[in-house]
Amino acid sequence: MEIKIMKNILDRNQNKAREVRDLLLFKRVLMVNFISSPGAGKTTLLERTCSKLGDVIRIGVIEGDITTDRDAQRLKKYNIPIVVINTEGGCHLDSHSISKVLDSFDLENLDVLFVENVGNLICPSQFDLGENFKVAMVSTPEGDDKPGKYPMLFREAKAVLLNKTDLIPYTDFNIGNFRSDLKNINAKIPVFEISCTAGDGLREWYRWIYDQIAASGKIH
Amino acid sequence: MEIKIMKNILDRNQNKAREVRDLLLFKRVLMVNFISSPGAGKTTLLERTCSKLGDVIRIGVIEGDITTDRDAQRLKKYNIPIVVINTEGGCHLDSHSISKVLDSFDLENLDVLFVENVGNLICPSQFDLGENFKVAMVSTPEGDDKPGKYPMLFREAKAVLLNKTDLIPYTDFNIGNFRSDLKNINAKIPVFEISCTAGDGLREWYRWIYDQIAASGKIH
Repeated sequence: MEIKIMKNILDRNQNKAREVRDLLLFKRVLMVNFISSPGAGKTTLLERTCSKLGDVIRIGVIEGDITTDRDAQRLKKYNIPIVVINTEGGCHLDSHSISKVLDSFDLENLDVLFVENVGNLICPSQFDLGENFKVAMVSTPEGDDKPGKYPMLFREAKAVLLNKTDLIPYTDFNIGNFRSDLKNINAKIPVFEISCTAGDGLREWYRWIYDQIAASGKIH
Repeated sequence: MEIKIMKNILDRNQNKAREVRDLLLFKRVLMVNFISSPGAGKTTLLERTCSKLGDVIRIGVIEGDITTDRDAQRLKKYNIPIVVINTEGGCHLDSHSISKVLDSFDLENLDVLFVENVGNLICPSQFDLGENFKVAMVSTPEGDDKPGKYPMLFREAKAVLLNKTDLIPYTDFNIGNFRSDLKNINAKIPVFEISCTAGDGLREWYRWIYDQIAASGKIH
């Protein structure tokens, strides 16, 4: 019975996601859904990306949080449109909540919408928001076994960001184990090894995300 | 409508949790539900605890994992009864899955059941498994803002384990911020500052958990 209920919820979510996707395609706005465990570094990545690309690309952000607006506060200094969705305890964003806030953005004058999902490696990967693609983030202190233990997200995502590479010397993280686990799940997915605090490896990420946005339409 | 469905699911879970709790009380087995983000260090804590207390306390473990039995493999060398519950994508354990596996344990000859929940800071805190109490674990690389951003677990738990204190010098983790956030949510909760890999601060944890188990009955 719970399986049937879950199927209904997912079906309704999927229908609304389709509407969101059609609208954004029409407006030529790319939507990217960032998913990770709590504290893997999503907000710091968005800070870096807004700081680097904010002058060449028109960025909007949707911040998914359970109860606070702390992440949005950190992004305010970049002068970009930001909307916070508080899930009030909910463990993921869904397409209905995204659909409701799209009106708050001037979509004609936006190239990309970055969605920072609730910090959770499981549930958000099951809910299509109408995004063009998901980006999975995982940080080295979480351990090299995360793709094997939480495969759904890594199967779904279009890119993986391996963050906090500056902490590898102080942990038992083994990059070979990580990459071999990932290969079994999603052989061709690009992996960006980065440290958002130290600034390592970000150039390749900026270039990749820029290319994705450019391909979606409005940038010439 | 979804709220009503969720209420039904939680009510059914609560009823079964009550049965589990009554059975364990009758058998005088303490059940402890460990909850954290993925990769915060729950399995390493259980390894340490089994290694230190396994000779004086009869320990059983229930390992909740989405799809693998890797954590259970790591605990095998301690010669304790272990049962794996694979949730097949599910984001938390529930009392029905716990109830089903209790038969696999010789409860007469057990003092404590440690339950390692699925790595998730949100959903597991909403599902009573029939445990005596929850222990929240958070690791320093996740950031000092976790209690404020994910308050439910920290409100519910009986103790907090702050793990990976050996990484504080390499991150911007601020222990004052962490403790002040926590104080607003759960003023009197004990906090153990530990590093499971370096072995720091564990003596207080061993003593505290031993006292909890002793108070529950069978140890003299």
